[in-house]
Order: sequence, then structure tokens, then C-alpha cells
Amino acid sequence: MDQETVGNVVLLAIVTLISVIQNGFFAHKVEHESKTQNGRSFQRTGTLAFERVYTANQNCVDAYPTFLVMLWSAGLLCSQGGRFERRLFVEKTLPDLQLGSGKLRRVPAAFAGLMYLFVRQKYFVGYLGERTQSTPGYIFGKRIILFLFLMSLAGIFNYYLILFFGSDFENYIKTITTTISPLLLIP
Amino acid sequence: MDQETVGNVVLLAIVTLISVIQNGFFAHKVEHESKTQNGRSFQRTGTLAFERVYTANQNCVDAYPTFLVMLWSAGLLCSQGGRFERRLFVEKTLPDLQLGSGKLRRVPAAFAGLMYLFVRQKYFVGYLGERTQSTPGYIFGKRIILFLFLMSLAGIFNYYLILFFGSDFENYIKTITTTISPLLLIP
Amino acid sequence: MDQETVGNVVLLAIVTLISVIQNGFFAHKVEHESKTQNGRSFQRTGTLAFERVYTANQNCVDAYPTFLVMLWSAGLLCSQGGRFERRLFVEKTLPDLQLGSGKLRRVPAAFAGLMYLFVRQKYFVGYLGERTQSTPGYIFGKRIILFLFLMSLAGIFNYYLILFFGSDFENYIKTITTTISPLLLIP
Repeated sequence: MDQETVGNVVLLAIVTLISVIQNGFFAHKVEHESKTQNGRSFQRTGTLAFERVYTANQNCVDAYPTFLVMLWSAGLLCSQGGRFERRLFVEKTLPDLQLGSGKLRRVPAAFAGLMYLFVRQKYFVGYLGERTQSTPGYIFGKRIILFLFLMSLAGIFNYYLILFFGSDFENYIKTITTTISPLLLIP
Repeated sequence: MDQETVGNVVLLAIVTLISVIQNGFFAHKVEHESKTQNGRSFQRTGTLAFERVYTANQNCVDAYPTFLVMLWSAGLLCSQGGRFERRLFVEKTLPDLQLGSGKLRRVPAAFAGLMYLFVRQKYFVGYLGERTQSTPGYIFGKRIILFLFLMSLAGIFNYYLILFFGSDFENYIKTITTTISPLLLIP
Repeated sequence: MDQETVGNVVLLAIVTLISVIQNGFFAHKVEHESKTQNGRSFQRTGTLAFERVYTANQNCVDAYPTFLVMLWSAGLLCSQGGRFERRLFVEKTLPDLQLGSGKLRRVPAAFAGLMYLFVRQKYFVGYLGERTQSTPGYIFGKRIILFLFLMSLAGIFNYYLILFFGSDFENYIKTITTTISPLLLIP
């Protein structure tokens, strides 16, 4: 990819890389617990502590493809920008201008992605909590996935609005998402 | 992404969003069954009804990344189009022309994706069926994944044919896939 | 996608298609073992042989999205190339020139991906080994994922280096990754 394209997705890429580190951390926890509990053989069942960490990891892994898909479609669809405006940026190679356009455009999606990773970490740690007998349910980060889903939906609607009516509501969508995204911080 | 790029992938994006809704529906079923059966604690085992819904969800989740990859590679690889033709579309900004090119090009892949979601829904519901003791196997939607796989393969072969022989068989491939795709409707 | 774009990702796409075939092979093994062991009903537990093949498949499936993400981000981020250079290739439509640029750029990532598939095959087969009671752990292909991760990281750092300092270290990174990638062959 050339410099401009990378600039457009670099925030999403960074969030993705952080999520991969987190995946590695979860997998390491499972591996570690498996080794202490089951001796040399890996099984899917075992002591309560192993069951907990395995289930927590499994639930996170189950939701991971959905999260990735939502992160990238929200980030890419909900910032389709003007074609002519982009052309301009291709002509001018001043990096500071690029910084003002492509990068900042993905901020709400990348921010929501980062929030999801925090929620996931909290969910995983909360799952292992030994004091409480009760564990959280199967689903987590529902609100963030919904936010990313609505962003993707807004992007698709915007595409059809431009196609059929010629009017671009992207600025409104961008303002709304940028305003709403801090609300994800509320626990 | 700019308007033209979004137009090229919008059908695939819509199928992806529908698949995410379906994932949410499956996860909700698991969550619901878990709450009624296991009380406040989430486990991977339980009553027969919970086992069924958990396994059904698990099998769908296992196949999900493969499906996504196949959907997008079939959609993107098997419609590489002429570069000059695309250039033309970039110049002319008439939306109806775009509608005739980029969008319709992804129809077979998006249609197969939609079929897969139907098959998956049927598989999930069939798995929970309480009348029958027997459950479907581990694999489902084999034919659709194969179709998408062959589309991707055709796209890659077409790339090498253009590269080495300079001949573009894309129109033949498009005709063939558009002809074959209704066959996926046969149960 | 047009010819040039496909040329840029064709190696990654081929590795992805091979990984899908391997997924199908693993799933087929599970299906087959399930049929011979559990009769007509699919369950997640059963005889030792079934448990082994199911767990092996599950562990591979768990790591699959992470692998895909790493393969593509390493391949795409770590070869951002010069914009102007690419422009040139768009003008000249000589295929042999394209062969010398876009395609060869993805070689380290595609090679690492292929290595990962070999390691995964070995892991899966090793898991089913009946002579040994001990099975491999939960994590496999750690070194390859780390290599792809570092490639992605190098790509992102390179982007910021160009953005802030205007200097492009891509050629150094390319040389380093091409030199290191054969080391993945060491078992």
C-alpha cells in the first residue's frame, strides 16, 4: 500500500495489532493454566480454575471475528469522503494535510475498538475472579459492537443517499459518531 | 474509501452486516439458554438443551472466519475488471453507469454469501430440533464454500492468464458464475 | 479489483486459499471421527480419539483469525512502497515490470504464512499421535506469528517515520525481513 492508503487505515491497524497482543496474552494464560493443572497433556476440561480460563478465552475467541469485521467495516465504510477531495490530497503530498483528513476520519471507530479491548480485558479478568462464584455471561461489549454496527450501517445508507439523491450526509454522520463515541466510556 | 470503492464492495458489506446480526442472534440464544439452565454461572456444559445450542453456536463460530475469507476473496478476486474500463468510470461520475459495473460484478459472490447465511440459519435451528435425537454433522454449507472457493481460484487463474498470455477470460468466468449461482438454491 | 491491485495481493490470496483447504481438511477429520464414534449425533465430547481430533481442530480454529489478520497486515503494511513509483507502474502496463515490484514485495509475509500452515499441519497430526500420551500445548506457530507481528509493526513505524521525518526505511526493512524469513525454516 502507498503512504496515503496506510495513513487512512493506520489507526485501525494499530488497534488490530493491540488486539493480537491481547489474544496472545489470553492464549498464554490458557497454556499456563493447562500446564499447571493437566500435566503434560492438553485437554478442554480440568479443574475449576482451568475451566474458567478456558471458557473465558473461548468466549473471547468466539467474538473475535465479529469484532474485527465490525471494526474494519465501521472504519472503512463510515468515512467514504469525497472523491475529489481525496484526489486533491493525492496531488498535494504535504503530510500535515493528510494528518488532518484520512487519519482523523477513523478516530471514532478506532476509539470504539480500543474501548472494546478494555472491556474484553475486564471481562477476561472478571471471569477468572475466584471470590465470586458467578461468572459474566457469554456476550460482552454488546454496546460497542452495536455502535460499530450502526456506524457501518450509516456508511452504507450514506452511499445509497449519494447514489440516488446526490446528497452527502457524511459530515453529519461524522459529527454524530464523534459526539456519541465518548459515551462508550460510561460503564 | 471513496464513493466508487464503496460501490464496489457494498453488496459484500451488506451480506457481512447481515452475518453479524445472525452471529448476535446465535450468541443471544446461547446466553439465554445458559441463564435459564445454569443459573448465574456460565459453563460450557449443562443440560441437553444447552449442550445443543452451545454446540450449534460453536460449530457456526468455527466456520465463520473461513466463510468471511471466502466471501471477500471470491467477491474481490473474481471481478478484477479492466483497468482502463475502471478509469473510464472514475472520469464519468454518472451513478447509473457505476450501478451497471462495480455493483453488479459482485452479485454472484454476495448471492452465495446470502445463501450461506440461510443454510446456517437452517443448520442452527435444525440443531436445536427436539423431536429428532440425531443432529446434523460438524460441517455445513460445504457446497457454497466450494462455489466461493472456485470463484476465488478462477480469479487467481485469470490474473495469471492476463499476466502471461495477455488474454482476459473474466467475461467467461462472470458468465459461468452468474449461471451456476442459482444452482445453489437447490437444497 | 484491477490487475495491478490483484498482483499486489495475489501471493497472500494464494496462501489464504491454501489455509482454507487445510481448514476443510481439519473439519472433515472431525466430521469423520464424529461419525465413527458418536453414531448419528454430533457432540463435543466422546472417546479419546474424538476428543483429540476435536481439541486439535478447536485449537487451530481459535488461532485462525489471529493468523489471518497477521498475514494480511504484515503483507500490506510492510510494503507500502513509493507512491510515485506505483504511479509509474500504472502508466506502464508491461506485466514483467509488475512482476518485479508488487508481487515480490509480499514474498516474506506469504512465505511466513506458508510456514505457519506447515507448522499447523504438523501440530494437528502430532495431536492425533496415538503413541504418545502427551499432546502439544495450546499455542503453536508462536515464532511465525511474532515474525509477522514485527513486520506489521515495522510497517507502521515506517509510516510514521515518513510522516514526521520524511525518510523512508522501507528498503532496510525489506532487506531485513527477506534475510530473516529463511530462519523460520529452522525447527
